[in-house]
Amino acid sequence: MVINKYQSFDNILTQFIRNGVLKVKKLKEKAEKIKAILFDVDGVLTDGGIYYSDNGDEVKRFNVKDGQIVKHLQDNGIFLGIITGRKSTMVERRAKELELDFYQQGIGNKIESFKIFKNRFMLRSSEIAYIGDDINDLPVLRKCGFSGTPKDARPYIKSAVDYVTDSKGGDGAFRDFADYILESKGLLSNIVNS
Amino acid sequence: MVINKYQSFDNILTQFIRNGVLKVKKLKEKAEKIKAILFDVDGVLTDGGIYYSDNGDEVKRFNVKDGQIVKHLQDNGIFLGIITGRKSTMVERRAKELELDFYQQGIGNKIESFKIFKNRFMLRSSEIAYIGDDINDLPVLRKCGFSGTPKDARPYIKSAVDYVTDSKGGDGAFRDFADYILESKGLLSNIVNS
Amino acid sequence: MVINKYQSFDNILTQFIRNGVLKVKKLKEKAEKIKAILFDVDGVLTDGGIYYSDNGDEVKRFNVKDGQIVKHLQDNGIFLGIITGRKSTMVERRAKELELDFYQQGIGNKIESFKIFKNRFMLRSSEIAYIGDDINDLPVLRKCGFSGTPKDARPYIKSAVDYVTDSKGGDGAFRDFADYILESKGLLSNIVNS
Amino acid sequence: MVINKYQSFDNILTQFIRNGVLKVKKLKEKAEKIKAILFDVDGVLTDGGIYYSDNGDEVKRFNVKDGQIVKHLQDNGIFLGIITGRKSTMVERRAKELELDFYQQGIGNKIESFKIFKNRFMLRSSEIAYIGDDINDLPVLRKCGFSGTPKDARPYIKSAVDYVTDSKGGDGAFRDFADYILESKGLLSNIVNS
Repeated sequence: MVINKYQSFDNILTQFIRNGVLKVKKLKEKAEKIKAILFDVDGVLTDGGIYYSDNGDEVKRFNVKDGQIVKHLQDNGIFLGIITGRKSTMVERRAKELELDFYQQGIGNKIESFKIFKNRFMLRSSEIAYIGDDINDLPVLRKCGFSGTPKDARPYIKSAVDYVTDSKGGDGAFRDFADYILESKGLLSNIVNS
Repeated sequence: MVINKYQSFDNILTQFIRNGVLKVKKLKEKAEKIKAILFDVDGVLTDGGIYYSDNGDEVKRFNVKDGQIVKHLQDNGIFLGIITGRKSTMVERRAKELELDFYQQGIGNKIESFKIFKNRFMLRSSEIAYIGDDINDLPVLRKCGFSGTPKDARPYIKSAVDYVTDSKGGDGAFRDFADYILESKGLLSNIVNS
Repeated sequence: MVINKYQSFDNILTQFIRNGVLKVKKLKEKAEKIKAILFDVDGVLTDGGIYYSDNGDEVKRFNVKDGQIVKHLQDNGIFLGIITGRKSTMVERRAKELELDFYQQGIGNKIESFKIFKNRFMLRSSEIAYIGDDINDLPVLRKCGFSGTPKDARPYIKSAVDYVTDSKGGDGAFRDFADYILESKGLLSNIVNS
Repeated sequence: MVINKYQSFDNILTQFIRNGVLKVKKLKEKAEKIKAILFDVDGVLTDGGIYYSDNGDEVKRFNVKDGQIVKHLQDNGIFLGIITGRKSTMVERRAKELELDFYQQGIGNKIESFKIFKNRFMLRSSEIAYIGDDINDLPVLRKCGFSGTPKDARPYIKSAVDYVTDSKGGDGAFRDFADYILESKGLLSNIVNS
């Protein structure tokens, strides 16, 4: 079975238009080396929406599509972690539910969290992928081994990363990023056909 | 009255581009035999969104469009059932409201639920349609008589099914799938003009 | 000031493609006679979404854009009313907030509500516009003086009405329908420039 | 680094198509003079959606993208304020969280609020930008120094403003407007590369 028979073609084409053939090959090589994925929450796992109720509650919308790939990533030995600027009980709950390996929230300087993660899991920067969508993610996006951002990020974030997802934040942007890494490592086909 | 005068044309065209003329004809023949529709919840009846409140509540968004066709399917003797991986009181409530014939949730292995349904209602696999959107749906999608997935499913799910809906999950994907089956069976025109 | 300088052109073009020049002229004439607008709720004022919480709450999403035109319609002597199949306290609350002239919910047979409204306000069918999005709206859509449906309605509803809105249900479909009627009656320009 | 390498080109192109080359240059000059940004809430910071729960709660959806630029605007001495027609505790909470300089809600006549703001902060009309999406915003949109509206505003609002955002209300329309002003003032590049 050929994975992504026609859709993937669109994706490759978009990458070609943005980057040229040589860079696409280089991206696959970068993604192939990844052993851990870190990610931002607002605008990546969610569409950036924060719902305020007039009785003081706050609500966030996550997506089942992102959660569905987590077990497969972990089964293949890929570490997962959240680095986020905003504190919230909802993110904590989601992190526990997905049984993530690392979780830091309320972080002003995300590059510090990145270094803590790198040392704790004894990884090189080139082995860590990161997906984030805004200005405070840029230091980590520039430092990590493979960087991504959702389709609906600001243009100056898009032009700073290796990979722009086909999906918007909250609509499976993390899933798209993770699928690309799994495919580059030659693991996706097995997962789909298991 | 001609149903779907111009929109259906787009749909047929998309099917042609994906499948060629002969396969479209074959799809109609598969859909024509259907006596029961089973469906997944997250990503099909919903857009995959799970809303977490900071006081611990969880919310799912269903769509009235999907519910509106249920009575008509039942009036025409088509059995309906849910097979879902995640447990939730909201899905239970929705299933009761729609008075579905079958409902199993918290199922790890969906193919087992499929077999239970098949035996209980004394149907052949070729008489059961299924719509699902992710990897854990693939075994049932490959086994059933007519398979569908929403427009916003991952590309490797889309390439594995008979029918890709015009609508996204939660925006009427089930309705689209059900309408296609009703139309193939020659029943839609009567429902619309009743 | 020319209203809808470029966007309206798209709209007119779409209408032309669907209907031809003569029918567009006829539509304006139908819309010009309207003295009351009746509307469905789910799928028109909302995107059809019904949010279920696991503590039993239900939520509907309305749009401020629809509400903003209500006062202007009323100032110009156009009666407004809701006919809906589903019962809900949220719809009741929205109807009160907008100070609508007529409101019936939990109606199985919408054509009965239409007749009650017609008689109470002493109007002809040709003076009442109706916007709805599904099969149970068809009898009223066929009977009323000017019929509309949102862009994301099923194709067989779209092909049965006079006017398909540029906006989806819940994203201002009612507003679009109301603006079209106000423009046809030569009233919109005054409202915008007041 | 070139900001907005390819996306900005689309934006510029759209502006050209709408306005011609000379007007785009004039827009940059208008945006360059801005020392304060005022904004509407419903349809700008939100998608216009108002969520009603059957237990009487009301919910609004804001976007983290809009909030992320606020600190940078304030660091660069740009005053920020809300003028809104609807009263709500959620807007009050959001205004406090973002530490805005000015906040008036429940205002029937927005032009009065505009004058109060102008006098309190000793600014000229040409130094104040405003983004709003509906008829009651038009007086301020016509009076202020640089006017904007979200992509999904009604066509007669779009044709009355200087700048139509690439994003819809609630999906970062304010962010887009603010980014454009920061870019025109030559400040965006520093913020992105800090």
